[in-house]
Amino acid sequence: MMQHDPPLLGCVIGPWDYSFKALRATKECVIAIPTVDLADKVVDIGNCSGADVDKFIKFNLTPLPAEKVKAPLIAECLTNIECRVVDTRMVRKYNLFVLEAVQVWTDEKRKERRTIHHNGNGTFVVDGRTINLKKKMVKWPEFL
Amino acid sequence: MMQHDPPLLGCVIGPWDYSFKALRATKECVIAIPTVDLADKVVDIGNCSGADVDKFIKFNLTPLPAEKVKAPLIAECLTNIECRVVDTRMVRKYNLFVLEAVQVWTDEKRKERRTIHHNGNGTFVVDGRTINLKKKMVKWPEFL
Repeated sequence: MMQHDPPLLGCVIGPWDYSFKALRATKECVIAIPTVDLADKVVDIGNCSGADVDKFIKFNLTPLPAEKVKAPLIAECLTNIECRVVDTRMVRKYNLFVLEAVQVWTDEKRKERRTIHHNGNGTFVVDGRTINLKKKMVKWPEFL
Repeated sequence: MMQHDPPLLGCVIGPWDYSFKALRATKECVIAIPTVDLADKVVDIGNCSGADVDKFIKFNLTPLPAEKVKAPLIAECLTNIECRVVDTRMVRKYNLFVLEAVQVWTDEKRKERRTIHHNGNGTFVVDGRTINLKKKMVKWPEFL
């Protein structure tokens, strides 16, 4: 997350990835957020390339039409974020695309809602409980 | 995390924050990672400014000397990452500093190791269990 309004995401993609070429060409993408029940599938999806296989078919995923971009949503995911590339100046040096989230979908009926976070070594931390400290937060106008 | 080798971190800081001015001036910082037992203190720390108070004194935190930067480590935190600013070209537009992690310290004896992740609305997700899928990961030379 780089900015709240408008919502900007910084997204680093290896130039060896098919996604890199696709994002450069289309200037659009969907970031689909999987939950812990999909963890094995997430790893398998990362172990092959969209240059070789249609991952929707191979992994039995359901594409749904997005509203503002041509890339499809993934019905099995908790959240899908439709994004447009808004700045490519950091791509050459850092493989960093700046994306604007233009539409967000969340499956409110989904039971499993815990997301996973890769530690970088094949292990993933699963979301635990949520703590609510809203009452302690000073509101911004008071703070500034 | 923007890059693994050398390890680069992208760090967005609001220009209204004292940290913003300090980082611009010193070109160095320590990113201290707290755990869930410190959550209340984390919010209180965010509710005031280093321009007005010495947060180490006010919040009874223990500064420790870093090895490669002048900013202190925080003894109470699980991990401390010594960083140097290596690129400020995205500061004007995005408040984004590119930091290189030059030294990392982790308190191996600490019992509570669960970190917290702000959802942006005063609620925090606490780390849950870790799942290990190392066996499923294709090693990079095989993949490329």
